[in-house]
Amino acid sequence: MDNKKEILDVFDNPNPERNYIIEHTAPEFTSVCPKTGLPDFATLILEYIPNKLCVELKSYKYYLNSFRNDGIYFEAVTNKILDDLVQVLNPRYMKLTAKFNTRGGISSIIIAEHKQEKSL
Amino acid sequence: MDNKKEILDVFDNPNPERNYIIEHTAPEFTSVCPKTGLPDFATLILEYIPNKLCVELKSYKYYLNSFRNDGIYFEAVTNKILDDLVQVLNPRYMKLTAKFNTRGGISSIIIAEHKQEKSL
Amino acid sequence: MDNKKEILDVFDNPNPERNYIIEHTAPEFTSVCPKTGLPDFATLILEYIPNKLCVELKSYKYYLNSFRNDGIYFEAVTNKILDDLVQVLNPRYMKLTAKFNTRGGISSIIIAEHKQEKSL
Amino acid sequence: MDNKKEILDVFDNPNPERNYIIEHTAPEFTSVCPKTGLPDFATLILEYIPNKLCVELKSYKYYLNSFRNDGIYFEAVTNKILDDLVQVLNPRYMKLTAKFNTRGGISSIIIAEHKQEKSL
Amino acid sequence: MDNKKEILDVFDNPNPERNYIIEHTAPEFTSVCPKTGLPDFATLILEYIPNKLCVELKSYKYYLNSFRNDGIYFEAVTNKILDDLVQVLNPRYMKLTAKFNTRGGISSIIIAEHKQEKSL
Amino acid sequence: MDNKKEILDVFDNPNPERNYIIEHTAPEFTSVCPKTGLPDFATLILEYIPNKLCVELKSYKYYLNSFRNDGIYFEAVTNKILDDLVQVLNPRYMKLTAKFNTRGGISSIIIAEHKQEKSL
Amino acid sequence: MDNKKEILDVFDNPNPERNYIIEHTAPEFTSVCPKTGLPDFATLILEYIPNKLCVELKSYKYYLNSFRNDGIYFEAVTNKILDDLVQVLNPRYMKLTAKFNTRGGISSIIIAEHKQEKSL
Amino acid sequence: MDNKKEILDVFDNPNPERNYIIEHTAPEFTSVCPKTGLPDFATLILEYIPNKLCVELKSYKYYLNSFRNDGIYFEAVTNKILDDLVQVLNPRYMKLTAKFNTRGGISSIIIAEHKQEKSL
Amino acid sequence: MDNKKEILDVFDNPNPERNYIIEHTAPEFTSVCPKTGLPDFATLILEYIPNKLCVELKSYKYYLNSFRNDGIYFEAVTNKILDDLVQVLNPRYMKLTAKFNTRGGISSIIIAEHKQEKSL
Amino acid sequence: MDNKKEILDVFDNPNPERNYIIEHTAPEFTSVCPKTGLPDFATLILEYIPNKLCVELKSYKYYLNSFRNDGIYFEAVTNKILDDLVQVLNPRYMKLTAKFNTRGGISSIIIAEHKQEKSL
Repeated sequence: MDNKKEILDVFDNPNPERNYIIEHTAPEFTSVCPKTGLPDFATLILEYIPNKLCVELKSYKYYLNSFRNDGIYFEAVTNKILDDLVQVLNPRYMKLTAKFNTRGGISSIIIAEHKQEKSL
Repeated sequence: MDNKKEILDVFDNPNPERNYIIEHTAPEFTSVCPKTGLPDFATLILEYIPNKLCVELKSYKYYLNSFRNDGIYFEAVTNKILDDLVQVLNPRYMKLTAKFNTRGGISSIIIAEHKQEKSL
Repeated sequence: MDNKKEILDVFDNPNPERNYIIEHTAPEFTSVCPKTGLPDFATLILEYIPNKLCVELKSYKYYLNSFRNDGIYFEAVTNKILDDLVQVLNPRYMKLTAKFNTRGGISSIIIAEHKQEKSL
Repeated sequence: MDNKKEILDVFDNPNPERNYIIEHTAPEFTSVCPKTGLPDFATLILEYIPNKLCVELKSYKYYLNSFRNDGIYFEAVTNKILDDLVQVLNPRYMKLTAKFNTRGGISSIIIAEHKQEKSL
Repeated sequence: MDNKKEILDVFDNPNPERNYIIEHTAPEFTSVCPKTGLPDFATLILEYIPNKLCVELKSYKYYLNSFRNDGIYFEAVTNKILDDLVQVLNPRYMKLTAKFNTRGGISSIIIAEHKQEKSL
Repeated sequence: MDNKKEILDVFDNPNPERNYIIEHTAPEFTSVCPKTGLPDFATLILEYIPNKLCVELKSYKYYLNSFRNDGIYFEAVTNKILDDLVQVLNPRYMKLTAKFNTRGGISSIIIAEHKQEKSL
Repeated sequence: MDNKKEILDVFDNPNPERNYIIEHTAPEFTSVCPKTGLPDFATLILEYIPNKLCVELKSYKYYLNSFRNDGIYFEAVTNKILDDLVQVLNPRYMKLTAKFNTRGGISSIIIAEHKQEKSL
Repeated sequence: MDNKKEILDVFDNPNPERNYIIEHTAPEFTSVCPKTGLPDFATLILEYIPNKLCVELKSYKYYLNSFRNDGIYFEAVTNKILDDLVQVLNPRYMKLTAKFNTRGGISSIIIAEHKQEKSL
Repeated sequence: MDNKKEILDVFDNPNPERNYIIEHTAPEFTSVCPKTGLPDFATLILEYIPNKLCVELKSYKYYLNSFRNDGIYFEAVTNKILDDLVQVLNPRYMKLTAKFNTRGGISSIIIAEHKQEKSL
Repeated sequence: MDNKKEILDVFDNPNPERNYIIEHTAPEFTSVCPKTGLPDFATLILEYIPNKLCVELKSYKYYLNSFRNDGIYFEAVTNKILDDLVQVLNPRYMKLTAKFNTRGGISSIIIAEHKQEKSL
């Protein structure tokens, strides 16, 4: 699972002199529960303030699709995606909100964020 | 009612070095009014920042189900669930919002939170 | 489970000469899955055209509450409630719609109706 | 309660040669439960095809307000209001839908209609 | 008020050989109550099957605006607008639904329709 | 109107050592306009942090019902209810939001709050 | 347009010792575009903390109605209404939010506020 | 504009022995008003029962995009698209609902359908 | 793909003497587009009148999950699932509505139904 | 693309002595993806505190329409529009929120703001 982030393409931030927010909402994320083997579904909301690089949208979609048959827990996959994007983009700020569909009558949201030191 | 918290299972926080939020929404909580014997219904929203432990979702569901035939007031059950989870998880932060269905034409929400000393 | 219908109280239809519709929506029905022992939750929508009798609302509530700890399937409980009400009220028409909450990611609705012969 | 319908004012239907529909929605109806003395609340939806007369809106409001402190059941008040309006207006068609707020966790709708013989 | 319909412009139905539906929703109709002098507000929904002519949208807007300071009742203005459009367009079918905002806590809908003889 | 607060019952706060929020929403408040004699309707949202006492829900309902036939203005009744509850409960914090239905095409909200000195 | 504010009536604030919020929402404001002569429509939300005086609701309605046939721009009318109310009421705080319906496919909101010096 | 339908690709209906419904909703249709040169926007809902052929989705999208800079009226474009699809697919039944965004404060819907002779 | 229907379990219809409706809504169906290899997502609504057999809910879920990595078109998969369920259950009536998420800006719904000969 | 801002007309701020907010929501923005040539659609929400000038609404609409056939990325077009408006209006504060429709199953929001130095 470690080389997934190679799927991610980037392009140069067209306005690096301004702190502005980019938000991508992907409502069709799916992976597999490592315990039961049953599919999990989530909506992922990515917000970030780009530094020098922005993530290319189509590659981000393929990156998310690559988890389709991976067995991974809610908490772990959310932190893993944030870590990959932070490594590739080195953003000034990044937040990932993962809203998982109900399982056993309980729905879950995981929210993780990253702040660049000395940047904002 | 004191040994209910033994139902709760935990697992290791996969990212203890980051402060991130886990939120579980359980819309099917039910207990019994100690005065009238009639059932009460609530949606419980649990939000927490894990320390070393996370609550296992299925055990949390069984824990909530264990109140099904207990007679207990709105205010008491909300504080009791928060106390149990704080004892088992020792979270950096935890908040429980219990939205009770209308009784006698009036609906009620109880919101309680716990902050770990010197942690946030 | 056979004497449950004795819980139901009735009162005289104040306008038996007119065919009119009575609809009661009970959003807090709960019983237990006979296979897993886990609670099921449903909203029950009862529609009927009264003949000589109407169901008293409070007794209908207590009748529904009596299923709280019974193990019974979606299809069976919907038909059972319809049968009991038909026997007690002998309505000109009756329809019961039971909307069960999601189980395993799938929600279910059961719709059953009764028509009095030679009445409408 | 028998002389309530004297509160209702009428005016001449400006287009009696055409069958058209008038619908008035009154969301603030309130009366009193004769058993418990507690207030009931309902939204009343009146639909009718006028014959020679239409009901004047302000008088209809005062007519509905006159039930504020009357003790009367859901089924009875719906049929009573329909009967009064039919007597005063002699409409070609009339339907009254009364949507009562939840009582004891159950909400109720009563639907009654009147068809003029040999008119539609 | 009789020459209002001269405001209405028309254009040739581009597909007179097919019965199809045109619906125009105008949410900003306003006139004046002839009794109180206070403004009334309504959403007008016009549906019709054109014959040889369609109503030009901008002229329809100016036609509706011409009622802005006229004193006229709900029932009368709905029938008046339908009559004007029927005379100008001679449609195969036409229906006008006028949804008036709440007055004295009661909202009203007037629905009138016209069917061409021997046409549908 | 001064002895209305005697209707209010209280019970001991089960968790006085924690500052937590209790919110009760009562959507069926009604009183009478002192000018016109016409009924007013409101939804009352009460939020408070209890000190030593909590308000008993059924008595709060009867307390609100006691205004049913009182003539009192929006602003006055909102402040009066807050004052009564503050006197009876001595809460650490209390806020009352009263959302009144539209009158003459205008809806109104009154929001008043009370903070205990040296408590939060 | 300068003497419009004489339409506004006031009454004494029943609780001047408490800072509380009064909010009036008027969804039926209409004036005329000075450029095109076409009507504009807006919802006006007035929020204020009264000082010694409150605005009487019916007079506020008539005040708003007085703009019905005035030609005035979005920005100007919002500031004009705020100025008039501030002069008449001398409130501790006042905010006016005017949400104008779409014109040429674009909807507009104007938000202006007034703070009394040395008051909050 | 006559050769637009050549953009449309088809594929064989996988179940021609069953009458089933295919519905495609395209919320991003845009063309240009021939009078003002300003853009129009619509949501197109296509429903049909296929005969031997189904429309390929991507080609349908490119077909709709081809109207982007065409000057054409609401009524004409709706009938034109229906005619093209009927010619290419020869469906057992087809209906096109075009919901146009508000223009001058009025929104419009055009609904046209085609029935194959001797087919349903 | 032909032996998928062996995943489906059944149980005896508890009320075969009554024609009643069972509806299962599965919002998490996913398969793969055979052209692009990209995932498709749909909500499947199954409605049927059981004959002698009902489908067991958990097996239906596993049956739907079995399409997760299959390449199959919208129209084909909808008809395939209907055919499998008809073969296994021999229902008196069955309808499958498959609502596919937007692809290329266009969302699609496929609706297929089966009627038992001489049964309804 | 550099002379687009000449399309923008301005008028004098009628209340320059007050800091107030103007918000324009344009739900029909469309440009073209420079990579695929396919159209993009967005809702643009412009909020600003005017200094000496306000943007004239009709010219703003024509300015936005001028992007209809330009190939430009989400991030670039949002920053470009903000820059043009800042140059023309020199506002005390300005924020542009661009909500782009879903592309490849992912929707995007770009939020950029400008603060006048030493102004707020």
